[in-house]
Amino acid sequence: MIRALILGYGFLGKALAKRLLNRPVEELKIVGLANSKGYLYKRDGLQLEKIKEPLEDNEGFEKGRATELLTKEYIDLLIELTPTNISTGEPGITHIRTALKEEIDVVTANKGPVLLALKELKRIADEKNVIFKYEGTVGGGIPIFSLVNKCLQGDDIISIRGILNGTTNYILTRMHFEGLTFELALREAIMLGIAERNPTLDVEGIDTAVKILILANSIMNLNKNLSDVKIVGVTKVTPEAISAAKDNGMTIKLIGSIEDGELSVEPRLIRLNHPLCVHGTLNAINIKSNVLKTLTLIGEGAGESTVASLLNDIYDVIKERHSKIKF
Amino acid sequence: MIRALILGYGFLGKALAKRLLNRPVEELKIVGLANSKGYLYKRDGLQLEKIKEPLEDNEGFEKGRATELLTKEYIDLLIELTPTNISTGEPGITHIRTALKEEIDVVTANKGPVLLALKELKRIADEKNVIFKYEGTVGGGIPIFSLVNKCLQGDDIISIRGILNGTTNYILTRMHFEGLTFELALREAIMLGIAERNPTLDVEGIDTAVKILILANSIMNLNKNLSDVKIVGVTKVTPEAISAAKDNGMTIKLIGSIEDGELSVEPRLIRLNHPLCVHGTLNAINIKSNVLKTLTLIGEGAGESTVASLLNDIYDVIKERHSKIKF
Repeated sequence: MIRALILGYGFLGKALAKRLLNRPVEELKIVGLANSKGYLYKRDGLQLEKIKEPLEDNEGFEKGRATELLTKEYIDLLIELTPTNISTGEPGITHIRTALKEEIDVVTANKGPVLLALKELKRIADEKNVIFKYEGTVGGGIPIFSLVNKCLQGDDIISIRGILNGTTNYILTRMHFEGLTFELALREAIMLGIAERNPTLDVEGIDTAVKILILANSIMNLNKNLSDVKIVGVTKVTPEAISAAKDNGMTIKLIGSIEDGELSVEPRLIRLNHPLCVHGTLNAINIKSNVLKTLTLIGEGAGESTVASLLNDIYDVIKERHSKIKF
Repeated sequence: MIRALILGYGFLGKALAKRLLNRPVEELKIVGLANSKGYLYKRDGLQLEKIKEPLEDNEGFEKGRATELLTKEYIDLLIELTPTNISTGEPGITHIRTALKEEIDVVTANKGPVLLALKELKRIADEKNVIFKYEGTVGGGIPIFSLVNKCLQGDDIISIRGILNGTTNYILTRMHFEGLTFELALREAIMLGIAERNPTLDVEGIDTAVKILILANSIMNLNKNLSDVKIVGVTKVTPEAISAAKDNGMTIKLIGSIEDGELSVEPRLIRLNHPLCVHGTLNAINIKSNVLKTLTLIGEGAGESTVASLLNDIYDVIKERHSKIKF
């Protein structure tokens, strides 16, 4: 039985707990739930159906830092879901580093640590012979890392291009189909809760750049950082430019790309018929490779679908631990 | 070291051999190549760079049936690539059954055996504790089985829909964009080598039905056969019908689907903006599931890209055998 702590109990943590309540995973026991104020811990497993929100309202809630739980005495698996901070990576990096050093497996959807400390964290995981998985960091539920590792064995990835930010894709979609200006489409997206109140990271292309970096460093084994990415956001895209594209069977999308070792994020013309050209909040990732030539994956890039990535990573941990026990 | 026999040395067998020549797979040795006339076998591994075509022209070519090689004394892995026969499944079924019984792992792209004998072959593989993989049978290089098994763990597949036949998709694409009649588009496809001279299996929807059946029985664990599939081909699709669809932002595609346990293949209206709506010879597969909700995969559904599926299956065999040795 794997004893897991969910650290970070926001939208995603709650969605994961709900799924595990409705459909328990054999061999997995949630022993801890933690937020920034403290934690709940029960050695035999928490009764998820009885958890009240907020966590602080539950009997047995311990004020303090959940890092106290990051030892093998308490848990076997850390599910790190604290908010992404792309400047410092904290508190995620500290959580993950501590856990890995304690020989605790880690599954995360937090982009910060993977963006800023992938090499170090991978090295520690290797040294300690533990598992570090981060499928949920890019493309929500689209299983891009898993796919490349487990379904394209023997092939060589040449390039990756993607629409990796649902917010900007929603905005560009509304501009394309309704002729809205950027400002109007953004306001609508904020109203609908698709864009955050401070949408800078999305509309300036930073969020896409972060994901492209994670793909580049993880899948293509590059060693790049944000300053290596040419980044142009969507704030200057005009309805006129989109309309002109439309007249030629094309549109404008914010495309992140890794081609010939060069990383870029910018609004690009794309044929409406191209598999990568998806609309609304959808994400799409196109891989070019030597043998398969081309493969495109399309799915929801955020929200609850990300639980699928967490689950898949968790199953990998369970399988790996099982095989170590079995053989 | 895994000793492999490539049985069936047509387009795909040659493409695989070529890839293995240019980029050898560690731990894999091709010891045999066979066609319907006989075989070449060398215990230490064939020198692929010296193989002449046809196989019969090589020194050491043994006339006779390659089934003589299907024992553990000669090989560890059968790569079965003989032509698909959807009526009898032969000679594929006999080859695969014999190999599995002899405790030889099997990788195939031959649809016949998987269509007609999946249950039996899986049972034998289980009993003998050997591996039976068939990624190349559906969607060419699109790694659909691998993806569902290894990247969507913990999720439940609800439905599958797909454009699974490149020939009919090419025809419908030409009808959509150029206004061609079915007959004219078919003639063009035959001229270009995209359609076979006898295109019945493709245009009548049989090929798509076979693939839908393999997906249904393999991924959804159903137990269906061809008579359970409602099949309508594309021969009656008119330019007028497509034109009317076009006027409404839609087109007509040959969609195979598994929904609520019902299997069907028929021309259906689809929005041009839908991720599944791909053109030319592209294939697309859309999965609906409980957690991820929706995922679409797009790629070339035939030709050399299928080598990617064979390679991935071969790597799975090697990994599995390694882990058995290692632990």
